[in-house]
Amino acid sequence: MELFAVPDIPEITDGDDLAAVIADRVEVTPDDVVCVASTIVSKSEGRFADLSAFPAGPRAREIAANLTELTGDDKDPRFAQAVLEESVELLMEAPFLLTETRFGHVGVNAGIDRSNVSGHDLLLLPKQPSKSAARINEALPCKGVVVTDTCGRPFRHGQRGVAIGWAGIPASRDWRGQPDRDGRELGVTVQNVIDELAAAANLVAGEGAGGTPVVVVRDFEFGELPGSENHFREIETDYVRQALRDWEYSG
Amino acid sequence: MELFAVPDIPEITDGDDLAAVIADRVEVTPDDVVCVASTIVSKSEGRFADLSAFPAGPRAREIAANLTELTGDDKDPRFAQAVLEESVELLMEAPFLLTETRFGHVGVNAGIDRSNVSGHDLLLLPKQPSKSAARINEALPCKGVVVTDTCGRPFRHGQRGVAIGWAGIPASRDWRGQPDRDGRELGVTVQNVIDELAAAANLVAGEGAGGTPVVVVRDFEFGELPGSENHFREIETDYVRQALRDWEYSG
Ligand SMILES: Nc1nc2c(ncn2[C@@H]2O[C@H](COP(=O)(O)OP(=O)(O)O)[C@@H](O)[C@H]2O)c(=O)[nH]1
Ligand SMILES: Nc1nc2c(ncn2[C@@H]2O[C@H](COP(=O)(O)OP(=O)(O)O)[C@@H](O)[C@H]2O)c(=O)[nH]1
Ligand SMILES: [Mn+2]
Ligand SMILES: [Mn+2]
Ligand SMILES: [Mn+2]
Ligand SMILES: [Mn+2]
Repeated sequence: MELFAVPDIPEITDGDDLAAVIADRVEVTPDDVVCVASTIVSKSEGRFADLSAFPAGPRAREIAANLTELTGDDKDPRFAQAVLEESVELLMEAPFLLTETRFGHVGVNAGIDRSNVSGHDLLLLPKQPSKSAARINEALPCKGVVVTDTCGRPFRHGQRGVAIGWAGIPASRDWRGQPDRDGRELGVTVQNVIDELAAAANLVAGEGAGGTPVVVVRDFEFGELPGSENHFREIETDYVRQALRDWEYSG
Repeated sequence: MELFAVPDIPEITDGDDLAAVIADRVEVTPDDVVCVASTIVSKSEGRFADLSAFPAGPRAREIAANLTELTGDDKDPRFAQAVLEESVELLMEAPFLLTETRFGHVGVNAGIDRSNVSGHDLLLLPKQPSKSAARINEALPCKGVVVTDTCGRPFRHGQRGVAIGWAGIPASRDWRGQPDRDGRELGVTVQNVIDELAAAANLVAGEGAGGTPVVVVRDFEFGELPGSENHFREIETDYVRQALRDWEYSG
């Protein structure tokens, strides 16, 4: 398996055809999964926004005032408003905002970026990242497309690449029922390959001014295993989420 | 960046010299990070165990009885005892056991495996996976070694590869203070590269009887960035863990 960044991607802006931008710069093959940073998907879909577009309601003002008090930094209530508008559930409101986005992803600040934004205050995540992935996948001869973001997580320091949208390949490969080395059936082993592909791509793309938002993963073998499209957990089996619903930050 | 599985690794057993096993089968170079599945590290360190070695105390019996009632499956109190003995904190006791291991990793069942174990009931995680990684790293001409496992996580379905030990390269690269594409400084952006390397390696290694527990990652560029050795979160900044301490499963 080989990974390389597509060279010379220009600054992406509203209306750009990402598949064409990619196809102009690399010969994509049927052995490829193309990983695309959500930043440029958002840019191509015009998901730029300014804080002035989010006049803060009472909930956003309350959240921002509380965060300002807690952190000592001046928190803009319009940013809290933007996060609320991008979300269907607020899981934590202090010491940072953790929400579920409209498409099911749980992340800090609803994944709204303030870096690499160019000329606007904010860049929102794509509205439906799997639809974005499908659109790119249809226009390229690759076997799959993964739309990635970079996120923190519980229990472990630092951020890593994750998949927020995908097309062409299943989200997971399902090893249940396969034999282990001693011929016993494997138990609960569903391997989320799109998150692993996103993490691998992030090693090559990086977080800085590198300008490498598209990474080709060549010769990843899904294998002769059943696939699963489950990616974002439902609340019923997400005990951490249940715990967070009951919890309040106490400083 | 290129990844390939080391071919023809034999069944590993107590006392095997993993570095020698690897060096006999692949020409490791200074451009390589070698990712080794914890399973074979454990096997080489004799971390096999039988349930009979864990006579259950009252706490383990209580946990197993509760899980048996909840799940309808007959849960062995000796397994609960093994998990407790491998752990420093029990974060969840239902509907499954989530603990912090003695070396700081949070995982289900303290990472104890019942698959690919060969001739014993259980395989415990290595006692000090970063020490194991350092030992292998010293004996090979590679730039780093990552000891991996496969774990589930909150918010997202399925498991993915994670690093539980590392040597030779820092755990994370620290982008804070670097400019973004508009010359603004990046905020909180610490990229956990060892978890990303483990996830990438897992795409190649798989979970089944494939027999490919060692994956070479060639030409991963850490880059000219500061490194950080922080990997497992402390409770102070782990809000999910704080929430779990207060939470109880209610069915
Ligand atoms: N060529 C190019 N690179 C970009 C653009 N926007 C972001 N990048 C690069 O894409 C990579 C990922 O950016 P990041 O902000 O981390 O995206 P995210 O992980 O999707 O939030 C970095 O190498 C950035 O320099 C763009 O419009 N054009
Ligand atoms: N050659 C060889 N492969 C093994 C051995 N034990 C496990 N494996 C393989 O190592 C890979 C990872 O195994 P897994 O049980 O998922 O390990 P874990 O992710 O560290 O818990 C799979 O391809 C297994 O078939 C062994 O002793 N020898
Ligand atoms: Mn982002
Ligand atoms: Mn990123
Ligand atoms: Mn394991
Ligand atoms: Mn595994």
